[in-house]
Amino acid sequence: MIELAQNRYGKSRVRLMKVTRHSHGHELREWTVQVLLKGAFDSAHLDGDNSKILSTDTMKNTVYSLARTSQATSMEDFAKELVDFLLGHNPQVSSASVSIESTMWKHLTVDGNPHPSAFMRGSGELQTTNVERTQSGSFLILSGLDNLVLLKTAHSSFEGYIKDSLTTLPETKDRLFGTAVRAEWQYTSATLDFEAVRIKIRETMLRTFANHDSKSVQQTLYAMAASALEDVPEIDEIEITMPNKHCLLVDLSRFGQDNPNEIFVPTDEPHGYIEARVRRKS
Amino acid sequence: MIELAQNRYGKSRVRLMKVTRHSHGHELREWTVQVLLKGAFDSAHLDGDNSKILSTDTMKNTVYSLARTSQATSMEDFAKELVDFLLGHNPQVSSASVSIESTMWKHLTVDGNPHPSAFMRGSGELQTTNVERTQSGSFLILSGLDNLVLLKTAHSSFEGYIKDSLTTLPETKDRLFGTAVRAEWQYTSATLDFEAVRIKIRETMLRTFANHDSKSVQQTLYAMAASALEDVPEIDEIEITMPNKHCLLVDLSRFGQDNPNEIFVPTDEPHGYIEARVRRKS
Amino acid sequence: MIELAQNRYGKSRVRLMKVTRHSHGHELREWTVQVLLKGAFDSAHLDGDNSKILSTDTMKNTVYSLARTSQATSMEDFAKELVDFLLGHNPQVSSASVSIESTMWKHLTVDGNPHPSAFMRGSGELQTTNVERTQSGSFLILSGLDNLVLLKTAHSSFEGYIKDSLTTLPETKDRLFGTAVRAEWQYTSATLDFEAVRIKIRETMLRTFANHDSKSVQQTLYAMAASALEDVPEIDEIEITMPNKHCLLVDLSRFGQDNPNEIFVPTDEPHGYIEARVRRKS
Amino acid sequence: MIELAQNRYGKSRVRLMKVTRHSHGHELREWTVQVLLKGAFDSAHLDGDNSKILSTDTMKNTVYSLARTSQATSMEDFAKELVDFLLGHNPQVSSASVSIESTMWKHLTVDGNPHPSAFMRGSGELQTTNVERTQSGSFLILSGLDNLVLLKTAHSSFEGYIKDSLTTLPETKDRLFGTAVRAEWQYTSATLDFEAVRIKIRETMLRTFANHDSKSVQQTLYAMAASALEDVPEIDEIEITMPNKHCLLVDLSRFGQDNPNEIFVPTDEPHGYIEARVRRKS
Repeated sequence: MIELAQNRYGKSRVRLMKVTRHSHGHELREWTVQVLLKGAFDSAHLDGDNSKILSTDTMKNTVYSLARTSQATSMEDFAKELVDFLLGHNPQVSSASVSIESTMWKHLTVDGNPHPSAFMRGSGELQTTNVERTQSGSFLILSGLDNLVLLKTAHSSFEGYIKDSLTTLPETKDRLFGTAVRAEWQYTSATLDFEAVRIKIRETMLRTFANHDSKSVQQTLYAMAASALEDVPEIDEIEITMPNKHCLLVDLSRFGQDNPNEIFVPTDEPHGYIEARVRRKS
Repeated sequence: MIELAQNRYGKSRVRLMKVTRHSHGHELREWTVQVLLKGAFDSAHLDGDNSKILSTDTMKNTVYSLARTSQATSMEDFAKELVDFLLGHNPQVSSASVSIESTMWKHLTVDGNPHPSAFMRGSGELQTTNVERTQSGSFLILSGLDNLVLLKTAHSSFEGYIKDSLTTLPETKDRLFGTAVRAEWQYTSATLDFEAVRIKIRETMLRTFANHDSKSVQQTLYAMAASALEDVPEIDEIEITMPNKHCLLVDLSRFGQDNPNEIFVPTDEPHGYIEARVRRKS
Repeated sequence: MIELAQNRYGKSRVRLMKVTRHSHGHELREWTVQVLLKGAFDSAHLDGDNSKILSTDTMKNTVYSLARTSQATSMEDFAKELVDFLLGHNPQVSSASVSIESTMWKHLTVDGNPHPSAFMRGSGELQTTNVERTQSGSFLILSGLDNLVLLKTAHSSFEGYIKDSLTTLPETKDRLFGTAVRAEWQYTSATLDFEAVRIKIRETMLRTFANHDSKSVQQTLYAMAASALEDVPEIDEIEITMPNKHCLLVDLSRFGQDNPNEIFVPTDEPHGYIEARVRRKS
Repeated sequence: MIELAQNRYGKSRVRLMKVTRHSHGHELREWTVQVLLKGAFDSAHLDGDNSKILSTDTMKNTVYSLARTSQATSMEDFAKELVDFLLGHNPQVSSASVSIESTMWKHLTVDGNPHPSAFMRGSGELQTTNVERTQSGSFLILSGLDNLVLLKTAHSSFEGYIKDSLTTLPETKDRLFGTAVRAEWQYTSATLDFEAVRIKIRETMLRTFANHDSKSVQQTLYAMAASALEDVPEIDEIEITMPNKHCLLVDLSRFGQDNPNEIFVPTDEPHGYIEARVRRKS
């Protein structure tokens, strides 16, 4: 006998651009939304009975319709509204999850000043949130960032690791340390100034990355996570992933040249992969 | 107080091509390997003490060295060897996980026959495995496939779903059904003819997809999963993800033309997202 | 003084899927179309006068409308129709160019037979055409293929090249030869069985690649081009680009192991780049 | 009879990171280099004779070796050195071309100040150059930028275009205007302060984009090109490509809502494609 153990469905990559037109200038937000629902959908799977299925096209329409009426300025607050709307209108849904990625845009600087209605794409870094709630439950909010590409040209060593018969990596007191940070933290409350808290977490992690005297990616990652928890009481757990995007020192001795930590080959693969979850001790 | 709740590290995107030279022709395998370790790495995070750290560069070397000596012909068996080697040589490691993606290559057909030493890349479909074990535990093997892009031009309808004030999607008795299947199944044993079982699971899912009279992606997904479990006793659970990659019928009535289900716009975003896990009832 | 030296505009990435429903089974074509126009558009650039501008949205509509009425089965013939339509309806256009990329789909094989209405994406190879004509001119048709990924595991050497003070590459009598072919050929006539000619060119190039005893990418590329010209009188010139996608032999001697041309690292960058244009001598 | 009409070869995607360590802070440059040679390579193609072939691996080594000794601070000057070196050491080469793409990095801001040795990836915009010379010729230098993603939320209309039977696009006095600029300009001299000139061209184009009262992409593109030529005497020709990355106004009237130019769907395909070359009148 066979059974449906678990299921989930929804709409991905609903792209939304919202322009808010103030007298002093425009605001531009670009969000990519995913909606996922769990619920009593067994009859759809087993019998082809769609009577409890909210079409994913309707989910898309819901995103746009709510975006028009919403007063939310943070992704987190808009996601909460979407979750509430979907649960409120669909009793057959047991749990709704909304994820949003925000693309970076900034006002163009023209003659030294930000232009009110011209914008430039920022870096490939994404700001993220995932808001989830069951019909009777409270919000679980995980926010974060992704693809924050960083590089240190000083204060990074890697020594004292295991040497076995397959080890060829030389120890180094001074290497380049390149990475693309993904982080996700959990808020202790569902009613916060999410934008302000986000900025503080991000700045704290960046400061720690820059100033850390790194003996390994692991140590720097932990320091970044710990500093965020120390400085920001509104979160109680953070998970960080930091690939080690190797920059290899080129061997120029073959050509009779030295290479005093100056010429490197940045590589995409293979790469190290380091992740850790750090939390307040209860 | 702050603590390290969980951590994991390793090497990603270790690319390996292995050529086996038989007298009647060559075999070509292209695998991309990821190694991830859990263990007693707290001192690395907290104190910058790397004495228990196996460098990820050494993991990469291990993959290549073992690939030379290994007799494994399946990804699953090679991953098991890697896990055993890493656990055996590193008592500080509590658990090792090896994931492999296999790229499709086929012999070039020349004048109607497969050429012994010339190959063509197949589709973007990947065959995958993840093998994991703790020091004292037994193997957990999850194999699967990814990005298997399929499309049905008949026997697919979508009707009878909820109509609310935000619903604009028209019902249809005859739509295109395009998807990119990701599947992952769990074996009941760690010593199997993995290649033969994989082929059977894949063929069963393809046959069901092709022949199914689909009332929704959910129903077809479930039918594919159920048929795999029914036909293949060597697995007891399967999870399938099938995005609904919409092909939109073009409205040609604006130009005085009909469009009898003939001209479509394939789109990448937004797309539906449907996943389910199906298992044997215990 | 400043002048507009040249200009061109149009619509890119117009995606079209056409299903032809025969009684014995369906045909599926997926084409991505680009339309580009040259003409008397100076007043648009200089004065913001759009009175001679055909909107790119209308170009998109034109693609879909013509796709419905067209009887063309080849990309080349459909592109010719589009060019004729655009030039015929727009006297301000001096020259129209239509490029099409065709995505590979094949019928799913179920129980040994092709299924009439279920399809699987083929490889990432694209079939291409570019058809261009001025108001009073005749068609220039360049067709080709792109991203045809090939690999030879025998009959490829690289020796006898220049050794200078910066040369570190060892000579080899037996290397892997991996590439991704892009080719573009010019037809001698605008009324051909384009599909049949294309198949013959492609098969000839594949046969030559497989059977060639290669002393360099250059030599194999030339042999492929020359054989296509020799076998296919309907073309008189062909340009081929073949990156050398290096597969590096892993040095296992550091671990006391040999590596008899068996274990390789496939790499994406850097890569060699080789191109040549070969033609009939006039 | 068949002949080799033209050929070219070289190395692509040679990635180089150069760290310059000043006492007050580090400089970081990431360049991706392509080298292409033309010359007397017929015997390689026709006879498999490699005696005149400089291996592409040696080209790669040359990039790294010269990067160590070079004092060049601009891509253009480094490319000139590479071209000179390749032509000087290889009399069989008739013409050498070096293209470089530069990736954006900026110092991390920590507590309001740029950190001396910590960096963050900037946007996906690339700075580019292509330097080419024959053995007896002078340098041809084309520099530019690519993937500069911009968006205007005001001062963009599109009206007065042709309305034919396939036109469905409504006229608009106020649309979003999103694009990803690619530009390439030609210098009048090979000895310039390339960095300073580049900054001036880029700022001029950005200022024009922001301030322009746009009646079409064509008009804004021309204005950007013309302003660059007017402000920067060191260039005499510029080619700009600006796709029209459509942001579609969502029709909320179906849900009884208005949408006063506020909620949009950004789309990637299809997209308009507009290019023009503008030059000084001779």
